[in-house]
Amino acid sequence: MKSYRKELWFEVPGRRAFVNITPQVRQCLRESGVREGLVLVNAMHITSSVFVNDDESGLHHDYEVWLEKLAPHAPVAQYRHNVGEDNADAHMKRQIMGRETVVAVTAGELDFGPWEQIFYGEFDGGRRKRVLVKIIGE
Amino acid sequence: MKSYRKELWFEVPGRRAFVNITPQVRQCLRESGVREGLVLVNAMHITSSVFVNDDESGLHHDYEVWLEKLAPHAPVAQYRHNVGEDNADAHMKRQIMGRETVVAVTAGELDFGPWEQIFYGEFDGGRRKRVLVKIIGE
Amino acid sequence: MKSYRKELWFEVPGRRAFVNITPQVRQCLRESGVREGLVLVNAMHITSSVFVNDDESGLHHDYEVWLEKLAPHAPVAQYRHNVGEDNADAHMKRQIMGRETVVAVTAGELDFGPWEQIFYGEFDGGRRKRVLVKIIGE
Repeated sequence: MKSYRKELWFEVPGRRAFVNITPQVRQCLRESGVREGLVLVNAMHITSSVFVNDDESGLHHDYEVWLEKLAPHAPVAQYRHNVGEDNADAHMKRQIMGRETVVAVTAGELDFGPWEQIFYGEFDGGRRKRVLVKIIGE
Repeated sequence: MKSYRKELWFEVPGRRAFVNITPQVRQCLRESGVREGLVLVNAMHITSSVFVNDDESGLHHDYEVWLEKLAPHAPVAQYRHNVGEDNADAHMKRQIMGRETVVAVTAGELDFGPWEQIFYGEFDGGRRKRVLVKIIGE
Repeated sequence: MKSYRKELWFEVPGRRAFVNITPQVRQCLRESGVREGLVLVNAMHITSSVFVNDDESGLHHDYEVWLEKLAPHAPVAQYRHNVGEDNADAHMKRQIMGRETVVAVTAGELDFGPWEQIFYGEFDGGRRKRVLVKIIGE
């Protein structure tokens, strides 16, 4: 069994953003030499997400509005977590969008349907944060 | 290490449905010959889900009502993604219900609790769509 | 390839609770002898969750309030599932918080960011329930 590990680093300038990280994950897969197996891609922070969806800017705007409706940032004092913090909403948004994705590797490629892309979802940006890529297989 | 791959195809007539796919996944596991390992089951489309829950029609009705409340289909013009599309809500419902599940394989069986069943969740039906089953182990 | 399996048992006295199970999962990893691989940790019941987030009591209070807003327990008669049951809301809360997490194993350790902790989320307690830990790797 082969295994491979890499950290991808991000620094999103504002509070929230969606970043397509499919090219970086594909590069990791090439470096791993794994032909059949599984790729785990997960946020290493608890106020950000890794998820699979469409690379379409209108949809990303819709996600932003929708997540803000389901888990509003303000007023920050509505959350007990916000003592010296203001990111409780980010911990909630991350639960809806998810921590991780597991993707199949087949014949050395990410085994994806036609529109699947991997995103880093940042909900509490403005600092350097990490995503872990772990690949196991043969 | 053994690996196995199969696509399951679905065509749901209406817009939304929940389909119990546990028998098909179990059949895949038998075909794979894997006794110890992991099964990944994921939607290959970004407007549908794979998730584990109860096979109970009342609950499925409740999910339908609940998801429509959290991410309403209409009015379609409320979503920027809906330019030549009307499925933005399906991209949101899928995030709540999830893209994938990873299930343990022990002694050649799906290692499930008493009520766990695997479902395909369709939120934008009326066309042929796929689920990927990938199994690795020994 | 090595594989390891253990069930963790819980009996939460009230209806809902979040329990940090990271020490137990770490103990499983030590017992497994796996140095490189993946750990799957999943609820074996469909009214509870396994998820990764922060071990901070204010945040857990915020999650409780937030989940109750998104999927209220009462009135129980609003859900068709609640015929001889009163736990339909627990099936919904579990979908938001998730069934499972997959964690990378690197050099014999859970490969975590600085604040990641694994939680059992109970939404329908008062009875003995289980979490499955499955580890594969080398």
